[in-house]
Amino acid sequence: MGGTIRIEMSLAGALLSGDVRALARAISLAEDRDPQASQLVAEVQPHTGNAYLVGLTGAPGTGKSTLADALVKVIRDRQQTVGVIAVDPSSPFTGGAVLGDRIRMSRHTLDKGVFIRSMGARGHLGGLAAATREAIHLLDAYGRDVILVETVGVGQSELEISTICDTVVLVLMPESGDAVQSIKAGILEIADVFVINKTDLGGAEKTRRLIQDAMGLGPKQAWRAPIVLASAAKEEGIAQVWDAVRAHQAYLTESGTLATRRQQRLKQEVMALVADRAREDARRVLDGDTAVGRRVRENQNGKLNPYALAEEVLDQRASQGGS
Amino acid sequence: MGGTIRIEMSLAGALLSGDVRALARAISLAEDRDPQASQLVAEVQPHTGNAYLVGLTGAPGTGKSTLADALVKVIRDRQQTVGVIAVDPSSPFTGGAVLGDRIRMSRHTLDKGVFIRSMGARGHLGGLAAATREAIHLLDAYGRDVILVETVGVGQSELEISTICDTVVLVLMPESGDAVQSIKAGILEIADVFVINKTDLGGAEKTRRLIQDAMGLGPKQAWRAPIVLASAAKEEGIAQVWDAVRAHQAYLTESGTLATRRQQRLKQEVMALVADRAREDARRVLDGDTAVGRRVRENQNGKLNPYALAEEVLDQRASQGGS
Repeated sequence: MGGTIRIEMSLAGALLSGDVRALARAISLAEDRDPQASQLVAEVQPHTGNAYLVGLTGAPGTGKSTLADALVKVIRDRQQTVGVIAVDPSSPFTGGAVLGDRIRMSRHTLDKGVFIRSMGARGHLGGLAAATREAIHLLDAYGRDVILVETVGVGQSELEISTICDTVVLVLMPESGDAVQSIKAGILEIADVFVINKTDLGGAEKTRRLIQDAMGLGPKQAWRAPIVLASAAKEEGIAQVWDAVRAHQAYLTESGTLATRRQQRLKQEVMALVADRAREDARRVLDGDTAVGRRVRENQNGKLNPYALAEEVLDQRASQGGS
Repeated sequence: MGGTIRIEMSLAGALLSGDVRALARAISLAEDRDPQASQLVAEVQPHTGNAYLVGLTGAPGTGKSTLADALVKVIRDRQQTVGVIAVDPSSPFTGGAVLGDRIRMSRHTLDKGVFIRSMGARGHLGGLAAATREAIHLLDAYGRDVILVETVGVGQSELEISTICDTVVLVLMPESGDAVQSIKAGILEIADVFVINKTDLGGAEKTRRLIQDAMGLGPKQAWRAPIVLASAAKEEGIAQVWDAVRAHQAYLTESGTLATRRQQRLKQEVMALVADRAREDARRVLDGDTAVGRRVRENQNGKLNPYALAEEVLDQRASQGGS
């Protein structure tokens, strides 16, 4: 036990002193859902809050990874350090893309100011959202100026990019159904910056007008999300994308909205931790020698009411002192 | 209030009597996270447990939707009714695919034995997993013989296909990185049936050997997942896919494993309901006039320890009687 604590201390110390292997090891612990990761995060927490978190989201095929790569170059040109987390809940099935990222990103491998990490299911089903949050804290404590978090799509309750990042960049393709569908679903609201990527495909202006018209119909916002046309593969328009992100950052800081966003983020993380704990408590009640556990185990046909069982589990936990 | 209850009663009655509009309305309530949906599910629960649940999963582009469409035809030819739920957490960004599904599936629109529904985020962020579970219960109570649930990839803790379905069909493409990545990640274990789709691309035999070799290395299983080669677009090998599913069903039934799987499914659902409740309780504590809520609201720099805050929320709930 003493040994374990000594290892954690030294890992935290190494991470804070800028040891990249310590960072990689710590993120692996988070990905493996090792309890040491949470202890590490708690320990380095006083050194966090300095990184600026940028989310890149959009449908598969819109070129998010290529854009991330191009943005890394711009960020480095501006003398900031950067960490990239590519989150793929469906990995390893999209392992090709992850592999592609690594190859594409390899031009940055000798640059100590760039740290890139793909996070997938790794055979450990579940826990990816918690692992990602921990990885962000670790990169923040490690001292990165900017953290780019790349995710596929939105609408996943557990890993909602808009509750994790300071600025959300929504990547669309010209003339794709995406833009229309996004407008219908009111998803445009999560975007702080729009990027219409792959402008060489044509139709980018039409897509821009579509988005502008949709925004015109919505409620007036204090921040009007800019629409940037880019070709990440040709590295065109990337500086403009980054300028738009920085403009949003300036707006958030000056308006005081940044603090509010970060409070929301902290609240979401606490809620997720409480939910995870409740889930594990429920598992113990159901697996244990309890009336409700026996009922489920003896059930043969699936006709029990799950809502009533959930109530029973909650009652059981309450009678045990609510822990 | 009396009016509300009367409406629910009649909706449940209509659904159980086979009214397709009642079913569609009920699933919409689930998708909208309307509390009436949970009440409906609780009410129709005694009529569930008869449908056989088949999950179709795999990377984007492997042809899951086309396979689902082809399977529907085979299932109908064998005189069974079928419900299809296409779950897309990243929708509406992949709205094109959903639209494509509808067009492709349109040949079934006049067939009362087929009910098809896409479930996406619909602008309501979060809750998709709960909505999907409810939709499955509703289709089950409606009397469908078979329910096909199509999801993208695996590794999402909330919506784990293997905890939702009786038989999991893993769809791969020949010679894709998917197969190799799946083997590395130990994801093969979730598959009850493998389908190597798009055999016209070539390389299917090589992929089959790859999977066979990997399975040979793993622990001996009582059920050895068959590998079926198919071309969903050409409707080749589809009857064999369905035969493999039925063979797995026979194995589960005869070995008694089906009851265990369904207990696991019920347990997972109860755990998810408890976690959702805890999340909402935590939100109330954090938004309320509590010490921990004030601490988060007054925080300006994000340096609070989320684990310590989660503990505080749990203590607060315990002191309120654990509800």
